[in-house]
Amino acid sequence: MTTPRFAPAQRVASFEQDVWSIFTPLAAETKAINLGQGFMNFGPPDVVQEAAKEAIDRVESNQYSHPRGRPRLRNALAASYSPEFNRQLNPEAEILVTAGANEAMFATFAGYLDEGSEVIVMEPFFDQYISNITMNGGKPVFVPLRAPAHAATQNISSSEWQLDIEELRSKVTPRTKMIVLNTPHNPIGKVFNEDELREIGKVAEEHDLIILTDEVYDRLYYPPLEKFPRIAALDGFWDRTLTVGSGGKSFAATGWRVGWLIGPEHLVKYAFAAQTRVVFCVNSPCQEAIAAGLEASLTQPLFKDQTANYLQKRARLSKVFDDLGLPYTSPQGAYYILVNTTKIQYPPDYSFPEILEQRGDDFKMCYWLTKELGVCAIPPSEFYTKEHWSLAKNFARFAFCKTDVVLDQAVDRLKGLRKYIVE
Amino acid sequence: MTTPRFAPAQRVASFEQDVWSIFTPLAAETKAINLGQGFMNFGPPDVVQEAAKEAIDRVESNQYSHPRGRPRLRNALAASYSPEFNRQLNPEAEILVTAGANEAMFATFAGYLDEGSEVIVMEPFFDQYISNITMNGGKPVFVPLRAPAHAATQNISSSEWQLDIEELRSKVTPRTKMIVLNTPHNPIGKVFNEDELREIGKVAEEHDLIILTDEVYDRLYYPPLEKFPRIAALDGFWDRTLTVGSGGKSFAATGWRVGWLIGPEHLVKYAFAAQTRVVFCVNSPCQEAIAAGLEASLTQPLFKDQTANYLQKRARLSKVFDDLGLPYTSPQGAYYILVNTTKIQYPPDYSFPEILEQRGDDFKMCYWLTKELGVCAIPPSEFYTKEHWSLAKNFARFAFCKTDVVLDQAVDRLKGLRKYIVE
Repeated sequence: MTTPRFAPAQRVASFEQDVWSIFTPLAAETKAINLGQGFMNFGPPDVVQEAAKEAIDRVESNQYSHPRGRPRLRNALAASYSPEFNRQLNPEAEILVTAGANEAMFATFAGYLDEGSEVIVMEPFFDQYISNITMNGGKPVFVPLRAPAHAATQNISSSEWQLDIEELRSKVTPRTKMIVLNTPHNPIGKVFNEDELREIGKVAEEHDLIILTDEVYDRLYYPPLEKFPRIAALDGFWDRTLTVGSGGKSFAATGWRVGWLIGPEHLVKYAFAAQTRVVFCVNSPCQEAIAAGLEASLTQPLFKDQTANYLQKRARLSKVFDDLGLPYTSPQGAYYILVNTTKIQYPPDYSFPEILEQRGDDFKMCYWLTKELGVCAIPPSEFYTKEHWSLAKNFARFAFCKTDVVLDQAVDRLKGLRKYIVE
Repeated sequence: MTTPRFAPAQRVASFEQDVWSIFTPLAAETKAINLGQGFMNFGPPDVVQEAAKEAIDRVESNQYSHPRGRPRLRNALAASYSPEFNRQLNPEAEILVTAGANEAMFATFAGYLDEGSEVIVMEPFFDQYISNITMNGGKPVFVPLRAPAHAATQNISSSEWQLDIEELRSKVTPRTKMIVLNTPHNPIGKVFNEDELREIGKVAEEHDLIILTDEVYDRLYYPPLEKFPRIAALDGFWDRTLTVGSGGKSFAATGWRVGWLIGPEHLVKYAFAAQTRVVFCVNSPCQEAIAAGLEASLTQPLFKDQTANYLQKRARLSKVFDDLGLPYTSPQGAYYILVNTTKIQYPPDYSFPEILEQRGDDFKMCYWLTKELGVCAIPPSEFYTKEHWSLAKNFARFAFCKTDVVLDQAVDRLKGLRKYIVE
């Protein structure tokens, strides 16, 4: 039964099946090792897990939270993030707890975009940005991050992916409202340095734009980086910046859906207005647990240990690509490796399901990897507009947020690629 | 720092402070007994609490869930609700787990409303409907539920609040897309009977409208009602109906933010498309726990016991209004009593904060009750459009989802009203 009255809203009618709902079930069905979606196959730290269970045992932490977030979590966020932002954060006005970082972005777009507002987004982008912008009447405008030419033949650092600041500047129009930044960047792993951030901030200042910076991987950056640079902490950019963070990414609990937004009161205000109507409030017991984790991180080296752990995981996984001679981008942050697949040749007569015909070539490569090698990776053309899919056709994104045992199994399977590699 | 570029989106610019963010902090500050917001001061059933803690201990139930909801929960919902809907529900296509019932409504509006789409809403309405509709470009169109004249002087049953079906019919225009129904109704407590539902369904059928029915209190209805009537189970209305349910309301865990949407595949489809982008997925461990609760309810009288419990709570609280001679609506479902406050006279020189000047008169009454009697109630004009605020000016909504101890304390305090009662 479908009738014109049952037709979907324009804002969702053209949505295609997202990459996650293709590859996550495919990985499950084929029993592939899922290095696709960036979730951990290990649990949150003990202190966080225990706090969650304690919260479940307390009556009031099973009931509605304040729509801004539970006081304990807002206080813990203020304590944890004030030094990061070089300012004393006000938990009553400058912090908003959200239903995951995703919903923080959605609520910000809902709070600030009108029909036709333009939002500048760097390509590649995390796929959800685009629908979150368009669902709220906005128009994404793209500016690329470019890899150097030698990335096709040799390993590079994610720092070598560059934004052309004049190209960014050229995208600003009278309708531009916002620039979306993502650092550490998914899927590249780039951590924007202070000079780059200042250049971006200046463009925002020149045109009086809001900066929405997705920093969900802010606790995961690798040596030689000693400090994670935040645009909101530089120069006068605080006043125009909303920073997004993630409890799930920080504490290995991607299914808890606890995120946050930090910024000046005048900007948090309308994201809060929107989010109160979208979700009203956020899961209470898991807010308590994330608060406990942040509290513990003030006196225990939780994040330092976690980083050390991820660093050796990065080495564990990247070694197989070194051995296979497949060039990749070594990430400065987050937990993805973007591998150049040009040299891999799957059998020319291999048959792919029809659903992949409408997608970039990298979807086929990742499908074949999942099905035949037993290792699921994500095709990054999902992170590009259709006209730029070709830029991603030779890449696959592998996540290393997995136990060492699973990474070693994946490495073993990936060794099987050797016979498909054509120099 | 505010600049034109930082101006909020039209869709949120006019939002006023909601009733909850006035009265919930007020209750806390004044140490009033909070019979305002409808949250429990007791915890979820043991089986549910234990399942939540077990889920926290399992790695995978702390990570992303399927955007449709965890298979275990969708299966449990299918098992629990199939008999309710007189059909075998398909957990793969006809059930969507949402970030609370609120977000189920939001996602449905986001999935189906275009700029100018009209949605018929009964007045009084749960306040979030309106912003959820307007944020998605829709226009709410109101049709009243009317109390009989004798409601001002004597107790009535919520069944006596009536919808004029011709008035509903008269509100339909070529732009009408949806009718929102709420049963058991908040704040009235009305449970629409089958005849009423059939009449509403016929209007929807005549004009090919979607029915979105908010049934979050579906497990809480009182004798003499033996069965909760659902419009989706009547005649052919299934094909045009989306039914919203709530884990928080069903299992005394309002802070878990686990809700659901049940309906035919062709309608669930675009609510799902929207919700995947708004929140991506829902808190994983609490989904497991709600699943365990639903599973247990198949063999244990969880809901029956809970209803018996609420029934005696209803009696416990309503007795004081009987004693005081304040007429009220006795609810057939949900956990609110709507009390007529006409006879209460607070001191004429009582001074109210300025914020209440812009609101209906019932805001003052509820403020005074909270501050001076120490019992917080919610002013129901929040559930009316401004032009109809006067309809609510003599009402206050009291929630009885509280422990007996707390209800008894509230009753003691409410007895203090006697000296303010003018016959």
